[in-house]
Amino acid sequence: MTAGSVVIEVTRGPVVESRHEGIAAIVRPDGSVVASWGDVDTAILPRSANKPIQAMAFVESGAVERFGLGDEHISLSCASHNGEPRHVETVRAWLKKVGLSEADLECGTHPPRLQASIEDLVREGALPTAAFNNCSGKHSGFLTTAVTYGEPTAGYIKYDHPVQRRLRAVMSDLCGVDADGFAHGTDGCGIPTLATPLRRLAQAMASMADPSRLSSKRAEAANRIRAAMNAEPFMMAGSGRFCTRVNGALPGVAQVKTGAEGVFCGMLPTLGYGIALKMWDGAARAAEVAMAALLGHLGVLPAGQQEELLHPPIRNVVGLLVGEMRPAKSWLG
Amino acid sequence: MTAGSVVIEVTRGPVVESRHEGIAAIVRPDGSVVASWGDVDTAILPRSANKPIQAMAFVESGAVERFGLGDEHISLSCASHNGEPRHVETVRAWLKKVGLSEADLECGTHPPRLQASIEDLVREGALPTAAFNNCSGKHSGFLTTAVTYGEPTAGYIKYDHPVQRRLRAVMSDLCGVDADGFAHGTDGCGIPTLATPLRRLAQAMASMADPSRLSSKRAEAANRIRAAMNAEPFMMAGSGRFCTRVNGALPGVAQVKTGAEGVFCGMLPTLGYGIALKMWDGAARAAEVAMAALLGHLGVLPAGQQEELLHPPIRNVVGLLVGEMRPAKSWLG
Repeated sequence: MTAGSVVIEVTRGPVVESRHEGIAAIVRPDGSVVASWGDVDTAILPRSANKPIQAMAFVESGAVERFGLGDEHISLSCASHNGEPRHVETVRAWLKKVGLSEADLECGTHPPRLQASIEDLVREGALPTAAFNNCSGKHSGFLTTAVTYGEPTAGYIKYDHPVQRRLRAVMSDLCGVDADGFAHGTDGCGIPTLATPLRRLAQAMASMADPSRLSSKRAEAANRIRAAMNAEPFMMAGSGRFCTRVNGALPGVAQVKTGAEGVFCGMLPTLGYGIALKMWDGAARAAEVAMAALLGHLGVLPAGQQEELLHPPIRNVVGLLVGEMRPAKSWLG
Repeated sequence: MTAGSVVIEVTRGPVVESRHEGIAAIVRPDGSVVASWGDVDTAILPRSANKPIQAMAFVESGAVERFGLGDEHISLSCASHNGEPRHVETVRAWLKKVGLSEADLECGTHPPRLQASIEDLVREGALPTAAFNNCSGKHSGFLTTAVTYGEPTAGYIKYDHPVQRRLRAVMSDLCGVDADGFAHGTDGCGIPTLATPLRRLAQAMASMADPSRLSSKRAEAANRIRAAMNAEPFMMAGSGRFCTRVNGALPGVAQVKTGAEGVFCGMLPTLGYGIALKMWDGAARAAEVAMAALLGHLGVLPAGQQEELLHPPIRNVVGLLVGEMRPAKSWLG
């Protein structure tokens, strides 16, 4: 089934005030399309939505066992986290375990995403460090992999560093196309982000959801990553976040991951499907409602969160309900 | 001239990563269209982009003279400000002059928009108050008008309060259609926001840019407001903001005002035109580039700011230039 675009509406009173459009694909591990909306052969930048794929080389390396790491570290390696204390402290302790420190992170420093964490820093008179970067867990995974293979850690974000080469090799295997041929831009955290046809990105997610066609080592890594995303959902994102709520509510059923500029990916192991979606305008608010609608369409939206995820309320400054977001009737509304 | 949509692109490396679409109209005071893109008869919610229109009743009331107010207060009455110290202190002093206080503001309280101002509050251990609300200047104008006319101030945000009735009467006069017939939602600050055909919103702006067909009292108010927006551009918005930069750079030539959900309006007195635009997805980043492109199209983009306003750079966490925003070639690129 191929149909029109993904459409998410934003209402205010009786008016549809704003409207977001995008593309989405639900795909099997062999690349066959279960359902799609829009031109899903368009190459998009997955940004952080493919972090679970990027975590594969880390888990496959045996670093988890070697350094006594656990689900919280694997989940962090897939995370775009809030920079809350548990995220930051776990990253710092992890880097120490592998003989490194925050100074080795090449992701740069930005204030924590959660306003309360920014305010904590201000009260302490402290400045954020690289561990607060929402990508610090993924970068810790990259560094740990380099250490495991005895590679230089400096420059691990560069396109030709072995760490990045391995990411492309995994991506090629999971999505069925040579990722070395993909155009690329530079992500917020400095690594290459590969222009991937949306359908192939969904196929890569499907290959992690149902890894039966992968090598046994790779399949084991995929199973381990999915389990960690469900077991440690706070590490994936943080307080109040969509990924944390959904992954925590659907153990064994769904593992979803947000990315910048309106991308969202998901693995559905009980169905054997992968999902990828991109909102053209890059709006995270719309990508979340679109992911909720796709989960609902497939019958795996967490009970008890359906209304809030599908129709997030819009309140004004004094807390009055003034509108909502919703999938358009022309799509899955 | 009517053509396709407004299109703003967001690039990352060689890839167009995201894309924003919208509608725009450049109109004369009689409602005739100079140029338009998309269906400009669509009714949109102007949100804060029509604050200069909403300031008309305040200035017409004679309150400025009666209470010894000046350009800074008029500019604040048109503002979506950052909640920086000068904004907050001026609002507090103003309300005192008219015998009121922050307790009379019905806009609600939110943290200041500027992160540095939030951090100042945290350091002081203080909480934001209603004066920090980006709309506190507009609401001070509403309250002052009610006091001037001897009306009850409580409930001034309600659809049937004389303050709101007067706003609709001014809007009807400026845009040439009875605004009492417009559907409405509730704005962030609690007042009604009227679903206005985009072309009519641009016409209202044109009527303020060239007020020759208005009553002399109303024309004088429009001239006074435009002058104040140029003379006190900081009060309109604040540090680093588009409205502050453009209005400060183009005295007598342009007065622009942003609104939530991707709306932007402008007055061009030397040309006698009004501008209104709406990005469908509600993105402020795209509305700014679109306004810059329209000003450039009309030859009134401030020299020295052209590159930065038309092609805002996108930098990653470490400050590397990784992309830019730009008007699409299919539009005004």
